[in-house]
Amino acid sequence: MLRLYDYWESGNAYKVRLLLSLLDIPFERVHLDILAGETRTAEFLAKNPNHRVPVVEWPDGRRLAESNAILFYLSQDTPYWPDAAFERAQVLQWMCFEQYSHEPNIAVVRFWHFAKQLEANRDALPAKMEAGYHALRVMEQQLAQSEFFVGDRYSIADIALYAYTHVAREGGFELEGFPAVARWLARVAAQPRHVEITASVGTLVSA
Amino acid sequence: MLRLYDYWESGNAYKVRLLLSLLDIPFERVHLDILAGETRTAEFLAKNPNHRVPVVEWPDGRRLAESNAILFYLSQDTPYWPDAAFERAQVLQWMCFEQYSHEPNIAVVRFWHFAKQLEANRDALPAKMEAGYHALRVMEQQLAQSEFFVGDRYSIADIALYAYTHVAREGGFELEGFPAVARWLARVAAQPRHVEITASVGTLVSA
Repeated sequence: MLRLYDYWESGNAYKVRLLLSLLDIPFERVHLDILAGETRTAEFLAKNPNHRVPVVEWPDGRRLAESNAILFYLSQDTPYWPDAAFERAQVLQWMCFEQYSHEPNIAVVRFWHFAKQLEANRDALPAKMEAGYHALRVMEQQLAQSEFFVGDRYSIADIALYAYTHVAREGGFELEGFPAVARWLARVAAQPRHVEITASVGTLVSA
Repeated sequence: MLRLYDYWESGNAYKVRLLLSLLDIPFERVHLDILAGETRTAEFLAKNPNHRVPVVEWPDGRRLAESNAILFYLSQDTPYWPDAAFERAQVLQWMCFEQYSHEPNIAVVRFWHFAKQLEANRDALPAKMEAGYHALRVMEQQLAQSEFFVGDRYSIADIALYAYTHVAREGGFELEGFPAVARWLARVAAQPRHVEITASVGTLVSA
């Protein structure tokens, strides 16, 4: 069975849980506590030298890291990856935007909140908040024109961006000024087989 | 003709210049001075609301942002994008690593150097340097086992990682401790049709 190295609160890991659930693929899940250093053990570093979850591991020993690369692989030959080459490139464009301009701001500030690191990062906070709001403005501009990010159809670009946007409030981001984003969040959550970030999906196993 | 919105010193823009040169695709190039705010004009924001180069624009008006999404699109049906689905996912895994764990450290510190922002970022520098060296260690571990990042063949994963690694010294990163990385840099530079980051390629036009 496919195995996911996971961390409950991680939106990056949630992306994979969500797509696996949408595709009805059974999986087992190993929870690693980032704050307790469980992604920095020798055993896990042998799986991902870059010490990050999610990592997906197949029974034949193949492994893949990086949430968006995992989404790409799992979505091949499914409706979540478009058929046309240019739409595929647009999906990747939004996923690159997510990893470079969205996650390092919106997800990182949320992490500071729940890891109690807000005070230690007080000087860096204003720039992170502004960059996070900038990312939300870019999203709002696109979603004012289309129901989903690419081709008016739910794709892995939406999954990638949903993960940390729908919990942005946990990092102190107010979504009131982003009505198209709010409608899109509701649209994603209403998809058949949608699961919440807190849902107990897959089969929990120990490493 | 395909048009590239470009910035000389940008490794992200260089990735696109390099692949276009490898593929012998003619293009015109508009140079935008990031430091002078030329990516924040209303005219350019209409092309990319996320105010970043590179952006590629086709004569029919289609546009694509995000260097790695552009590499993906231009490499379709070429030897720089593998045939096998899992190798494709591994290429994207390394490109995600580049944008999340490599570029924000190695490229950003280099930018601080030449934009004279080093003093303003003095407190953030040690963590950026350590994270940059971590990225180099992850690369070294892979390149000690394989000539290129995926499938022992030059791909867009190598182009993406070459861009800022080969100028890492401009950000103060010493590559002496990374012999496999150094051999790989030489291997990439020896490819037919390779061009330097400083090479005058394409046709320079004004916006």
